[in-house]
Amino acid sequence: MILTRPILEINFDNILANYKTLQKIAPHAEAAAVVKDDAYGLGAQQVAQRLYNDGGCQSFFVAHGIEGERIRSVVPDAKIFVLQGIGQDSLEAFQRARLIPVISSPEMLEFWKQNKIDGIKPVINIETGLNRLGFRESELAALTNSDKAEFAMVMSHLACGDEKDHFMNEHQLENFRRLKALYFPDLPASLSASDGTFLGAEFQFDMVRLGAALYGINTAPYRENQMKNVVRLLAPVLQIATLPKGDFVGYSATYRAMSQRKIAIVSIGYGDGIPRALSNVGKVFFPRGDRLYEARIIGRISMDNIICDITDIPDVRQGEMAHILDDFYTPDDMGRDCGTIGYEILSRIGKSARTEVSLSANIA
Amino acid sequence: MILTRPILEINFDNILANYKTLQKIAPHAEAAAVVKDDAYGLGAQQVAQRLYNDGGCQSFFVAHGIEGERIRSVVPDAKIFVLQGIGQDSLEAFQRARLIPVISSPEMLEFWKQNKIDGIKPVINIETGLNRLGFRESELAALTNSDKAEFAMVMSHLACGDEKDHFMNEHQLENFRRLKALYFPDLPASLSASDGTFLGAEFQFDMVRLGAALYGINTAPYRENQMKNVVRLLAPVLQIATLPKGDFVGYSATYRAMSQRKIAIVSIGYGDGIPRALSNVGKVFFPRGDRLYEARIIGRISMDNIICDITDIPDVRQGEMAHILDDFYTPDDMGRDCGTIGYEILSRIGKSARTEVSLSANIA
Repeated sequence: MILTRPILEINFDNILANYKTLQKIAPHAEAAAVVKDDAYGLGAQQVAQRLYNDGGCQSFFVAHGIEGERIRSVVPDAKIFVLQGIGQDSLEAFQRARLIPVISSPEMLEFWKQNKIDGIKPVINIETGLNRLGFRESELAALTNSDKAEFAMVMSHLACGDEKDHFMNEHQLENFRRLKALYFPDLPASLSASDGTFLGAEFQFDMVRLGAALYGINTAPYRENQMKNVVRLLAPVLQIATLPKGDFVGYSATYRAMSQRKIAIVSIGYGDGIPRALSNVGKVFFPRGDRLYEARIIGRISMDNIICDITDIPDVRQGEMAHILDDFYTPDDMGRDCGTIGYEILSRIGKSARTEVSLSANIA
Repeated sequence: MILTRPILEINFDNILANYKTLQKIAPHAEAAAVVKDDAYGLGAQQVAQRLYNDGGCQSFFVAHGIEGERIRSVVPDAKIFVLQGIGQDSLEAFQRARLIPVISSPEMLEFWKQNKIDGIKPVINIETGLNRLGFRESELAALTNSDKAEFAMVMSHLACGDEKDHFMNEHQLENFRRLKALYFPDLPASLSASDGTFLGAEFQFDMVRLGAALYGINTAPYRENQMKNVVRLLAPVLQIATLPKGDFVGYSATYRAMSQRKIAIVSIGYGDGIPRALSNVGKVFFPRGDRLYEARIIGRISMDNIICDITDIPDVRQGEMAHILDDFYTPDDMGRDCGTIGYEILSRIGKSARTEVSLSANIA
């Protein structure tokens, strides 16, 4: 068997199951779905449509106007919030798709006031400690009553929601409560993304914004992941070879065989979103019955290929699919192995134009 | 001015100019263009069409059958070579688009013999030291005369072509010459990609396979880059704020202000291909007349935003485009700043579905 293409299996059933689990964790808040960056690479249209049709999801968050416009047709009467807000380069998308801007600065509020869309009331984003987008306190104090009346919801965003006992959580919660009480006492509120949702009811307010956890990422890493994995990434063994003792492997000859090895060339590379930082440190997997074998990545990862050491793995065959990501080695695990987070892994692997995407409902 | 979207400017004139420069460096070899991974993220169709129409390029290399099929319509009578070869999952693409497989193993040769396409003669890839794809010497020795007659070209690939004096270059050159003389004395040959092309005439044989250098990457980094830069990446300043002394910035609070700072939130992030590994170490740029100001990235890069320190930069304005990549800070530079190579940077930034792609002919 000769195969050449990687396969990304996306389990939309599990995304829906994660959505329902999260709804139970925040039973008194509306569960909005974050589908920015093409639903973290997994397909914003498919995710939004599934959660809208089968999960009853009525509110979606994207980063850019263009992303909102892309999902409008599949969630015809849902609210679509745009986190980066509205500007000259997205105004038409907002008008066409009836998007709701998240407004983070006085200047953007001015732009909104000159370009209002009938029937749309924006969200105000206030800064409580992340020091990213959002109105600072002095800017809130300068708002007129008529400015304040523009808004339908107030939101902020946590910096350290994935660390249960981090002092920033209480600090931001206090700031959010205080600023909301001062400036928007009557508006519904949203503070938390996935990570904050796990911090308990007081962080959930009226709406939680669920992204990473929907896609299986453990946003509460201080305990076992309660989310189901939603991706498997497989890539075919394109060639098996003997690596003589003393030979080098890959670009810049960064691996040298201290004894004769058996190697497999697997048809996936950084062009498909596998971080090159996994060179000589990552691993791919070959399941054999109940047992799972790790094959260490040796040498540099190249654009289209990974080379791994299969010396101790029984019966690896050409055309066999190596497991790159699976339930037992998730985007979180791969991220940890190269100094990043599962979010970045997901965001990358979904963007390969050579990987075959397969919709799977039967990931274990 | 409020703007929210990043802009990637791609200069196809410079890609064409690089192609012509490389043709002069290898005047006796055919200059094939490598457009795999969507032309390193820059658009395989556009690149192939331009080089075919205006550069006279008649041979293109892709990694996967599906990539070859995507460019067939714009290069109707060119040769399209597929580096990962042919298999069950790509056979139909090969047939429809009349692609030429690069065959790297005896098993793939068997597959080819059972699935030949009339009028197509494949390339044989032989292993000379990279220890990636290719026939090993024992496998070459086992070929019958009729097997050998299948092929129209013999190729291999260098491991260390970007290091002028690396012993691997001579080692692979000797291996390639010896194996070609033994097994394919009459076939045209191709050993070098961009990097090997710069190693001189003896490495160029009958065809050079030009990828990275076309896209401005310095594949001969032991001297000044002779290639023109082909990309600029710009992203708007979405908000400017004061960062009080003692405050933290971004996820996990990884940056703390030792004095009051002025910060800009720039609307681009790892979702757009900016490596998260640039958190707290990368920089973005603001040109002011003849002078170029560096704004250090502070805190973690997030999916949609970068925060940078603009305290010492005059007159940064909301809506102004920060320069993320430019002639003075190329994909090579960004790669070096986060422990990778320009290839991986290019491959990532071209895949953002939120970035506006603009075709520029006037990069300085």
